[in-house]
Amino acid sequence: MARSFMDKDFLLETETSQMLYKAAEKEPIFDYHCHLIPSQIAENKQMNDLCDAWLSGDHYKWRMIRAMGFNEKYITGDAPAYEKYLAWSKTLENLIGSPLYHWTHLELQRYFNIYEPLTEKSAPGIWEKANTMLSTQQLSVKGIFESQNIYAVGTTDDPIDSLEYHKAIADGTAPIGKINTKVIPSFRPDKALDLTAGDFTEYIYSLSAASGINIKTMDDVLCALENRLDFFISMGCRASDHALEYVPYLETSLKHTNNAFKKALSGKHVSVEETDAYKTIMLASLADLYSKRNIVMQLHLSVIRNVNTKMLFKTGINTGFDAVNDKKLAENLSSLLDLMELVCFDNGLPKTILYSLNPKDYYPIATIMGGFQGSGKAEMKCAGKMQLGSAWWFCDNRDGMEEQIRVLANLGMLPAFIGMLTDSRSFLSFPRHEYFRRILCNIIGKWVENGEYPNDTQKLENIVRDISFGNAKRYFE
Amino acid sequence: MARSFMDKDFLLETETSQMLYKAAEKEPIFDYHCHLIPSQIAENKQMNDLCDAWLSGDHYKWRMIRAMGFNEKYITGDAPAYEKYLAWSKTLENLIGSPLYHWTHLELQRYFNIYEPLTEKSAPGIWEKANTMLSTQQLSVKGIFESQNIYAVGTTDDPIDSLEYHKAIADGTAPIGKINTKVIPSFRPDKALDLTAGDFTEYIYSLSAASGINIKTMDDVLCALENRLDFFISMGCRASDHALEYVPYLETSLKHTNNAFKKALSGKHVSVEETDAYKTIMLASLADLYSKRNIVMQLHLSVIRNVNTKMLFKTGINTGFDAVNDKKLAENLSSLLDLMELVCFDNGLPKTILYSLNPKDYYPIATIMGGFQGSGKAEMKCAGKMQLGSAWWFCDNRDGMEEQIRVLANLGMLPAFIGMLTDSRSFLSFPRHEYFRRILCNIIGKWVENGEYPNDTQKLENIVRDISFGNAKRYFE
Amino acid sequence: MARSFMDKDFLLETETSQMLYKAAEKEPIFDYHCHLIPSQIAENKQMNDLCDAWLSGDHYKWRMIRAMGFNEKYITGDAPAYEKYLAWSKTLENLIGSPLYHWTHLELQRYFNIYEPLTEKSAPGIWEKANTMLSTQQLSVKGIFESQNIYAVGTTDDPIDSLEYHKAIADGTAPIGKINTKVIPSFRPDKALDLTAGDFTEYIYSLSAASGINIKTMDDVLCALENRLDFFISMGCRASDHALEYVPYLETSLKHTNNAFKKALSGKHVSVEETDAYKTIMLASLADLYSKRNIVMQLHLSVIRNVNTKMLFKTGINTGFDAVNDKKLAENLSSLLDLMELVCFDNGLPKTILYSLNPKDYYPIATIMGGFQGSGKAEMKCAGKMQLGSAWWFCDNRDGMEEQIRVLANLGMLPAFIGMLTDSRSFLSFPRHEYFRRILCNIIGKWVENGEYPNDTQKLENIVRDISFGNAKRYFE
Repeated sequence: MARSFMDKDFLLETETSQMLYKAAEKEPIFDYHCHLIPSQIAENKQMNDLCDAWLSGDHYKWRMIRAMGFNEKYITGDAPAYEKYLAWSKTLENLIGSPLYHWTHLELQRYFNIYEPLTEKSAPGIWEKANTMLSTQQLSVKGIFESQNIYAVGTTDDPIDSLEYHKAIADGTAPIGKINTKVIPSFRPDKALDLTAGDFTEYIYSLSAASGINIKTMDDVLCALENRLDFFISMGCRASDHALEYVPYLETSLKHTNNAFKKALSGKHVSVEETDAYKTIMLASLADLYSKRNIVMQLHLSVIRNVNTKMLFKTGINTGFDAVNDKKLAENLSSLLDLMELVCFDNGLPKTILYSLNPKDYYPIATIMGGFQGSGKAEMKCAGKMQLGSAWWFCDNRDGMEEQIRVLANLGMLPAFIGMLTDSRSFLSFPRHEYFRRILCNIIGKWVENGEYPNDTQKLENIVRDISFGNAKRYFE
Repeated sequence: MARSFMDKDFLLETETSQMLYKAAEKEPIFDYHCHLIPSQIAENKQMNDLCDAWLSGDHYKWRMIRAMGFNEKYITGDAPAYEKYLAWSKTLENLIGSPLYHWTHLELQRYFNIYEPLTEKSAPGIWEKANTMLSTQQLSVKGIFESQNIYAVGTTDDPIDSLEYHKAIADGTAPIGKINTKVIPSFRPDKALDLTAGDFTEYIYSLSAASGINIKTMDDVLCALENRLDFFISMGCRASDHALEYVPYLETSLKHTNNAFKKALSGKHVSVEETDAYKTIMLASLADLYSKRNIVMQLHLSVIRNVNTKMLFKTGINTGFDAVNDKKLAENLSSLLDLMELVCFDNGLPKTILYSLNPKDYYPIATIMGGFQGSGKAEMKCAGKMQLGSAWWFCDNRDGMEEQIRVLANLGMLPAFIGMLTDSRSFLSFPRHEYFRRILCNIIGKWVENGEYPNDTQKLENIVRDISFGNAKRYFE
Repeated sequence: MARSFMDKDFLLETETSQMLYKAAEKEPIFDYHCHLIPSQIAENKQMNDLCDAWLSGDHYKWRMIRAMGFNEKYITGDAPAYEKYLAWSKTLENLIGSPLYHWTHLELQRYFNIYEPLTEKSAPGIWEKANTMLSTQQLSVKGIFESQNIYAVGTTDDPIDSLEYHKAIADGTAPIGKINTKVIPSFRPDKALDLTAGDFTEYIYSLSAASGINIKTMDDVLCALENRLDFFISMGCRASDHALEYVPYLETSLKHTNNAFKKALSGKHVSVEETDAYKTIMLASLADLYSKRNIVMQLHLSVIRNVNTKMLFKTGINTGFDAVNDKKLAENLSSLLDLMELVCFDNGLPKTILYSLNPKDYYPIATIMGGFQGSGKAEMKCAGKMQLGSAWWFCDNRDGMEEQIRVLANLGMLPAFIGMLTDSRSFLSFPRHEYFRRILCNIIGKWVENGEYPNDTQKLENIVRDISFGNAKRYFE
């Protein structure tokens, strides 16, 4: 029987799935990796209108408006907010089968109580109604955190960051006041690893300043990062993060690598091999720092950045011109983890989450990480120490999430999965957790009703509750 | 409830799917990329028998007859037509789950009104009945074009081709007489790009002759191709096509590349790097020519040719010995498109269709092309300017088409898709469009009945009609 | 309607699937590739308890117990058998969606008549009941072979093996006495091909001793292997096997390659290129030996071994630290098969089975092998001469098997498939054939009930019976 559009049983195709979702939906949200801006949280940002809410920074949507053929004026340009919103509404009608279609309507339903599909025709009415609501306290950051039951958010921060907003939020001295949501910094030292970046020298100077360590050698960089990591931890940090277009792995002498660092610091050209060698040593050394402090290590892999040079000059980075990379990774990833495991000898690898933007990497990653499960001393062990990261970015769609969940269930242990994160810059994107939980409950419910797992309600509810929230809480705390 | 074999609701699993297919099936066919032979169209070819129709050039079928263990005599050899047909019939019975099974029976149903499965036992009766019908006007090329509602076919032609048959067909002076179907040449300059081919020098002489340009340098090649492209356009050409085993990308100096060209022209050995550098420049320069004329650029990728040398000597090329390649392509493809975008600066990239023979490439391609959507000046923009090509050749099966459609819906904009093409050498293969439309309507109907998109009949019918025909018509005209 | 846990219609979602499985389940089992230990068969091994049966050598399970966070003591360590079993029981509860969950419960049902799910709570009772039964003749090797209707098992053996246990079993002089199951050796000369192994020199001495040929050159290795192959064939061998992390292909001079061999023999370092060149020649030469004797050639591809050095030193090889590799293979695989086809000129390639541990390889492999189907002289031809190997190891799960079956049906000829093998070291793993047959019948039944293939019961039953048993019997005999 045909079902109505995105009703209460959306994506829940069996009764068991529906029953399980009732347990999952009550769980708080631990959005452990996102790109929310701490200053906006601190100021308890209020969004102006649906354009501000949806189109001020969301490159997922920008890509689609471009695919629709609109001029850049309506995307990152200076068109009036309402015209941009109309361009998006017209685009959205064509996003049948896209996660953006579902995310948008989940947001309309959950935040604005709007159940009408957004079309060119319904756009004006929805604009009026939603904008009015956006000006209420209910849709301030604080209001959203409360209504969406947000236990914690993990922001993404540079080691040189002062974390002043995190501090003010934690102290309750920021304009947002006391909130129940934890706002946790994450340590992302990408800039200290990228010898080839144009601003590398400048960055190292900033790192020197932030850490108080005069950086002259590779070892100094590590000391400075250790110093900042400890500061981050004092501010509640529980995780690090590394964005890598591919997995670097190259072993050379420390001397050779240190020389490469010095070349880069003095503004000279370094080769790809030199950069890979430097990253190899730095990543292994950082893994040891993380392990000793029981900090989670996240690796984000298989991205190709800024494919369109013309647009890079016009609109800058993170504006919708990144894509999926397809380098092989099995040999380098296994070698890098192996090196880390040796470097971290006594403790064993830190808890590690491996994300890939290319679904073809799931089989290699899920099996390689299986070779490092349960490493290290007793107090470092836990179920699912090594994690296959949630379907990420371009993979964060219904089919992609199903594939990630099924690969993990086939090759690893699904009930130990720490589940969903938004990776988002938007305060409205929390219903993506709902989307994920529905998909998860749907898969499990179908297995049960197909006789593939016993119909043990309590066990099943525990599984979906743990993946929705409990596992992440335990993993990061 | 079990359904009967390939009935009117074949592959249409929901009522909405069935309703949508009623809209899709009425649309004409724009078979924008195929390998029909213009002279056979001009002469209004009549097929002798089912062997001629099915087995005279179809390497898809030849591969399967070999897999069945038959001697080459019954495949490309000199066995009598009826014996070859019997070998095929015996083979076909074993093709459960293969697209060949469905294509064959769609052809029997649509052209011959035969609803009985083809088996070793039914083969003699079907041979008699079908052969009789093949001799009627109804199954001449003209009859087929009319009964199948063929709006246009895009043939694949070498730049040195005189296009005399295209002209005669367009003028109505060919034996086939006046027809409503447009027969459009496509510009495929592969031979001008392949420095390593044994007959490269000879080909360049032919190109000189055809264009009237005495070719001595790389620039001369471009001039000659521009000359031929304009001639093709005067004959109705709307698209170019490039077949590439992988995406070449290598930047060197123009001088170095021109020297490589001269070496090849004088019959000397050139390296893989030299060939890649030459192809890089030629492809970028051709993209500029296409863009200025608003000609569609097609790139066919990830093939490996002639894997069996023994059979290459015995049966030649295009006889069933090609396969799926698996090189990485993300870096080269994004770099090549980026270079093209820079070369085409004012206009932006031409409309571009990217086909891969390897489904693992869909994620990289669909996301990379997203970084070039909407490029160029206003009159060059359109919805879906960059296209993820239809599931092609080995991918052209039910699962492959579903995967291509779902990836496009997840990562791009499905309603802008220009849809199906046969890529076929056979005049009977048009029901593959029906096969595609059924699969498309099935997916969309299931989404709707699962509550994933509003049940807006008019919008949905427009989507399937556009993908079936309207988008291709707009894209190429 | 919800179905009960793993009942008689487990995984059979349509009536046609259920009907087909009734035909498939009666077929004997030809487990043509496994790692059962011949001496244990000869002695008619009796398992002590469920720990001995399940946990004494099964690295699939060990990986999961590690993922659960247990200490190595409970895995390969010295914890008491019952504690290890409890660790496994606790782990198993979390393996929802994993093939291990289904395999374990199929074994409990078929061997022990236990239909209760294994949980931490039910573990003690199941331990008692199962252990009692394990001490009976019914669960001796002989009892299992009889109750499971095992027609033949293909063990995996080194060329230097004396095959004394195979002989004793065949003669009926081993403790197990006369049995109806054929125990067939397979010829796996990996150690003669791996120039870089630490014990290469030592191995070549052993091969000299076993063959009576004083090995000084590459040619001598081939003569020695030919000698052993003929001995293996005299003992019933029907298949060879090669484990390769990737497909090597490098053509150099015979002299150069022979020098590389001599370097390795004298304990000197050889490069990756030298090893690849040596393997290329050896594999092509061995293919010729296999072809002349009509011995099946198996290639196992895309593995990465021993990713965790620390654990390699602690627990050794084959203890759960291997993973999926992701090198490209299309060019090398097609080149290697092409070379073999040329070397085997008159006969054509031997029957060949290509297994990959990475599902991304299915499309390249299935299409490349299509270019070598039907090669060679008439008596070497058969349906499905080139085989896409069954979903293997990490791929041997429900989704993986479905993918392998569907790719084969889409790109090749499913009814010629030789079907399942366990690849297992355990005497209890035969119900994996049941698992495979259920999945196979489910797919075919669904196609039929969806109108995609005629509902011809006899034809369909023949297909599933052939894939379950008949094809393997014909292929290997």
